[in-house]
Amino acid sequence: MEPSAPPRRVTIVDVAKHAKVSVTAVSKVLRNAYGASPAMQAKVREAMAELGYRPHAAARGLRGQTYTIGVMVPDIYNPFFADIISGLTKQLHGTDYQVLVGPARHDYDNEALVTEAMIDRSMDGLVLIVPTSTPAQLQATAATVPTVVVGRHVCAAAYDTVVDNDTAGAALIVEHLVELGHRRIAHIEHVERTPALIASMPNTIRARGYRQAMQDHGLAAHIDVIASRYTREGGYLGAQQLLARRPRPTAIFAGADIAAMGVLEAVAEAGLSVPDDISVAGYDNSVYATLGPISLTSVDQSGHQMGNHAGRLLLERVADRHRPSTLISLSPTLAARRSTAAPPA
Amino acid sequence: MEPSAPPRRVTIVDVAKHAKVSVTAVSKVLRNAYGASPAMQAKVREAMAELGYRPHAAARGLRGQTYTIGVMVPDIYNPFFADIISGLTKQLHGTDYQVLVGPARHDYDNEALVTEAMIDRSMDGLVLIVPTSTPAQLQATAATVPTVVVGRHVCAAAYDTVVDNDTAGAALIVEHLVELGHRRIAHIEHVERTPALIASMPNTIRARGYRQAMQDHGLAAHIDVIASRYTREGGYLGAQQLLARRPRPTAIFAGADIAAMGVLEAVAEAGLSVPDDISVAGYDNSVYATLGPISLTSVDQSGHQMGNHAGRLLLERVADRHRPSTLISLSPTLAARRSTAAPPA
Repeated sequence: MEPSAPPRRVTIVDVAKHAKVSVTAVSKVLRNAYGASPAMQAKVREAMAELGYRPHAAARGLRGQTYTIGVMVPDIYNPFFADIISGLTKQLHGTDYQVLVGPARHDYDNEALVTEAMIDRSMDGLVLIVPTSTPAQLQATAATVPTVVVGRHVCAAAYDTVVDNDTAGAALIVEHLVELGHRRIAHIEHVERTPALIASMPNTIRARGYRQAMQDHGLAAHIDVIASRYTREGGYLGAQQLLARRPRPTAIFAGADIAAMGVLEAVAEAGLSVPDDISVAGYDNSVYATLGPISLTSVDQSGHQMGNHAGRLLLERVADRHRPSTLISLSPTLAARRSTAAPPA
Repeated sequence: MEPSAPPRRVTIVDVAKHAKVSVTAVSKVLRNAYGASPAMQAKVREAMAELGYRPHAAARGLRGQTYTIGVMVPDIYNPFFADIISGLTKQLHGTDYQVLVGPARHDYDNEALVTEAMIDRSMDGLVLIVPTSTPAQLQATAATVPTVVVGRHVCAAAYDTVVDNDTAGAALIVEHLVELGHRRIAHIEHVERTPALIASMPNTIRARGYRQAMQDHGLAAHIDVIASRYTREGGYLGAQQLLARRPRPTAIFAGADIAAMGVLEAVAEAGLSVPDDISVAGYDNSVYATLGPISLTSVDQSGHQMGNHAGRLLLERVADRHRPSTLISLSPTLAARRSTAAPPA
C-alpha cells in the first residue's frame, strides 16, 4: 500500500504573500514582538484566518510534538550523505516537519552523543545514516523514538530500513570490468574491526559482493582485497600496495568514490595513466565521480531516492508507532565513465 | 517486538540521592555556579555517570535553555560550508550545546522558513551561513535570538560577523596570474540581482576586488567580467563565452571552485589544455581543488577557522545578549597548484 503524502500545511511564507507583507513581519506578529503595528497585526491575523494557518507553537501545544526530524550524519563532507539529506528534506518540504542534521564524527561515541542529544530535545523521529551502533543499541533508540536506519543492512520490528543492494552494486563493477577484458581486478575495502558490524555494514557487503562476483566469473584465483579505509589516504595507500604487485592488477575497484580519489593520486604519482595503463572504479556516484577531469566509473545508489523513502517511512511511523516495519532495498545502477577501458594489450 | 514505553528519565533528585548531597548542590554543579567545591563536583559527576544522567533536560528546566545551536546552511553540498560546520562543531565539542544544521535551498523564502523553524524550536543561538536576507531582516532575527552571520559583509550592533577578506582574496589570484605573465585575465562572477545585497555579498566583493586588482596592475583595459552563477553550469557557460573571444583570455578566475569545475569542462570540450593553453583558478580551496586530477589554484579562506570563531562568538553572546558586537575579518591565503602556469608564448 502506497501511503499518501501528508497534506501540505500553510506556512508563514504563504501568510506573508497573502497579506503582502514580509515574512519577518508575520513572524513578529506571531511572536507578539515589539514593532508590529496594530494595522500590521490586523492584516496578518486576517491572512492567517483566511488561509487557515495554524502556527507551529500552537500545533506543538495541541499535540505534544516538536515537528522536528533529526538526522545523524557521520560525515558532513560526504557528498553521498548530502544526497540522502537533500532527498529527505525535499520529501518533508511543505509539511510542518523541520529536518535538523546533527554532524557526528565517524565514531560510535560521537554518534551516541548526537543521537542522545536529539532524543533529549524531544525530536519526533530520527534518521540514522550508516550508524555504527550495535543492533541492540539501534533497538534501544528505536524503542524511544521513531527511527529509520539508512545504508546499513539491519532490520528489526522497531524501525524501518532503507538500503542499497551493495552485493549487486559490487557485481555491476566487476561485470563491467570483465566485459572490458580485465581479469586482474583488485578491490580496496574499508575493513570492519568491530565483530558486531561485520554482517551489516555496506563496506563489508561490497567486499563480499566483489569476491562473489569474481568467483561467478571464474576469476577466484585473481581475488585480491586490500584492507584499508574509505578515505583519500586509505585509497592512496591501498593503491600503492597494489601498484607494487608483479604482475600488477589492470583494474582497481575502490569501495567508495572518496577512496578512488586517493587511488587516482597514487596512479599518477607512479607515472601511470588512467585508463590506458590501469582502470579505476569507485562506488556512490558522488559529485567527485562526475567532475570532468576525474570522470570516474562508479555505482549509483540513488542517495536522493533513499532520502525520499526514509522521509516517507519516518512520517508513517511517527503517525503510527506500532505499524509493521519495512525494509526497502534499492537496486543500484552502473555509471560508466572514462576511468575504465580495456586493459593494456 | 512491541516497542516498550520510553524508560523513566533519571532526574537530579535521583542524582542527589545517589551522591548523598542536596538537590541544590547538584543544581549548582550543573550550572557551574560558585560554591560547588571540586570534591562536590567530583561526587556529583560520578553519580551522574553511574546513573546515566543526561543534564540537558534538567538544565533546560532550570535555565529555560535548549542547549541547541542552529546553523542555517544554504547548500548542504557545498564543501566550504562543511568546513565552517566542522569548525563550529569542533569548537562546541565538550560543551552542553548541540549543533543542529538546517539545510535551506538557495533562496530567501527557504532560508526564512529554516530560520523561523529554529527560532520556533527555542534554539539558544543561530549561525547564518551567507544568508541572503536584507539587513533589516537580519536585524530582526538577531533581536529575537543571539546570532552570528558568517561569510557576508554586514555588521550591526545586534549580531556578530565572521568574514573572509574577499577583496584581498581576489587580489591574491590576480597578483599570482600577473606574476606568471598573464594580462588577459577574465573573471566569472555570481551576479547579484537583489539591490539590497550588492554591497555585502562575497560574490560581488570578489568581482570588485578583481576589477580593483586589475587596475592596480595597470590592466584596466583587460578587465573582462562574465555575469554568471557560482555553479558548475554557470562556470561552463561563462567559460564558453570567454573561449569564443578573439583574442582569448589566457587565464580564467572563477569566483568559486564549483564554478571552476564547469570552466575545466568547457576548456576540455574546446580541445584546450590546462595550464598549457589556459590557466584556471577558483576560490574557496575546497576539497575539489585539492583532488589530484584537478589540482586547482584557489584561495584558502579557512572555513574551519571561520566556524571556530562563529562558535566562540555565539556562546559569548548567548551568555551576554548585550555585549558589543564583533566583526572578525580573516586574511585569505593563496593555494597555488598545477592549474595555473605561464601563458603560452
